[in-house]
Amino acid sequence: MLYLIGLGLSYKSDITVRGLEAIKKCSRVYLEHYTSILMAASQEELEDYYGKKIILADRELVETGSAEILRDADREDVAFLVVGDPFGATTHTDLVLRAKRDNIPVDIVHNASVMNAVGSCGLQLYNFGQTVSMVFFTENWRPDSWYDKIWENRKIGLHTLVLLDIKVKEQSIENMARGRLIYEPPRYMSISKCCEQLLEIEETRGTKAYTPETPVVAISRLGSATQSFKVGTIKELAEYDAGEPLHSLIILGRQCHELELEYMLEFTDNKEKFKIDVANDQEYFKPTPWVPPSGDDSN
Amino acid sequence: MLYLIGLGLSYKSDITVRGLEAIKKCSRVYLEHYTSILMAASQEELEDYYGKKIILADRELVETGSAEILRDADREDVAFLVVGDPFGATTHTDLVLRAKRDNIPVDIVHNASVMNAVGSCGLQLYNFGQTVSMVFFTENWRPDSWYDKIWENRKIGLHTLVLLDIKVKEQSIENMARGRLIYEPPRYMSISKCCEQLLEIEETRGTKAYTPETPVVAISRLGSATQSFKVGTIKELAEYDAGEPLHSLIILGRQCHELELEYMLEFTDNKEKFKIDVANDQEYFKPTPWVPPSGDDSN
Repeated sequence: MLYLIGLGLSYKSDITVRGLEAIKKCSRVYLEHYTSILMAASQEELEDYYGKKIILADRELVETGSAEILRDADREDVAFLVVGDPFGATTHTDLVLRAKRDNIPVDIVHNASVMNAVGSCGLQLYNFGQTVSMVFFTENWRPDSWYDKIWENRKIGLHTLVLLDIKVKEQSIENMARGRLIYEPPRYMSISKCCEQLLEIEETRGTKAYTPETPVVAISRLGSATQSFKVGTIKELAEYDAGEPLHSLIILGRQCHELELEYMLEFTDNKEKFKIDVANDQEYFKPTPWVPPSGDDSN
Repeated sequence: MLYLIGLGLSYKSDITVRGLEAIKKCSRVYLEHYTSILMAASQEELEDYYGKKIILADRELVETGSAEILRDADREDVAFLVVGDPFGATTHTDLVLRAKRDNIPVDIVHNASVMNAVGSCGLQLYNFGQTVSMVFFTENWRPDSWYDKIWENRKIGLHTLVLLDIKVKEQSIENMARGRLIYEPPRYMSISKCCEQLLEIEETRGTKAYTPETPVVAISRLGSATQSFKVGTIKELAEYDAGEPLHSLIILGRQCHELELEYMLEFTDNKEKFKIDVANDQEYFKPTPWVPPSGDDSN
């Protein structure tokens, strides 16, 4: 059996009881290690907690070494652990398809992922549109296809979850060119960096998918003991120091219900200003006001 | 401390280790009992598993009796259990706000909910738009505000998760009128009933937010041992017997990636037909084809 097991967001004990029981039966335990990290537990702590050695699975292993991961899984139990849920932000459908092709039974043990746990900021998951990813801009690569998606969501009133780039085990271009297997230290995009990039692209595009005054929710270390939320405008949060990773951001849609707003007010010191920011941002999307017919009644 | 603890989707062991540890410290344990049910465990089994008595919390208790739920929670630990995640389809922000007003600390223990676990059908969570709810139609009440939402999602290419009605502890109109506290047996909407209602409203509205030929994914007993997926058109699944509850449905958006399609093909016996259904449905949303300029080159 291949078990795909979600680890949840932060603590080693965020694993489900069923997931932990499954790991204990497994002869090999892989941990997907390139799209997210478990914030509050190291590899050693997890190994100790599970009573198993963990094999770190980087992108190469998962994308090209799936035969090794699936080896003997028709006769033994193998676990593939994923921070969050196995079908959350990064899905592992590929691995499941390969297992099915090899007649290996698959069991999924779900868990919370950023995709549903963001609901704890008070915004209704019902009212989210498509999710976008923000990658670190480089000098020559500043991808902005997310801009249109935010625009599409906001036109129909929906909130947008922005997932921020994580670079684990990346090579510098120089090292890659020289074939040196030297990896850069991990990098996690901060909320302020994300807001800067949002502002830059809005300035280039200029079609007002959002403005510097658009309200956003900064989410830091979701699901951990130091989790924190902060609301403000994009311009304000471009200056915000959200502390340790991981960070995410939500751009408000034009529909913001009263209960959503009330909950978010807990996350600002300037409640009156935030209420005005939300009202102004929503105003932008309202249909143009009805103009009474002119005095001329002759038609 | 007030603990809001997600139970996940099905098994008693779908609770996280951290959630279980929290329950064991609590002097009172409530189970929210009107928006969903844990499929594979009865109240008695849960009580046995937790080593605690469970107080079932119906809508009245949660909406008007929160003072009782929060009683002494500044000095004792109280657990409020929610099937799925506490901020999933139904959010309990209200209870959290009340606790905060009473200076009661709150800890959230997240878990999988239908909102993220639906990813296991192979459709990317990234590509979902707003979520809609389908309630049982009555003779005089056939709400269809979801129709416009599906339309909005599909116009920009997004999938729509449809959550199906659950009626627990409902009174008949007659019993309600006579003030008799007699409750109807629980009812869970089936996929076929949902598809029927979809077809009815499309016929009334006629603006082709979808058609009888639009591909959908039927999800039965998500996360349980008897979980099953089935793909087909709305018309086909209006005849589908999906078995025991709980059911959900996904209406495909116009963007359906190759890997998404490949994964879904596992869920039909007629793969060729489904591929054609998907292609035809996507065709409908394509921009009108580019028409070459007429032979007149003079302009």
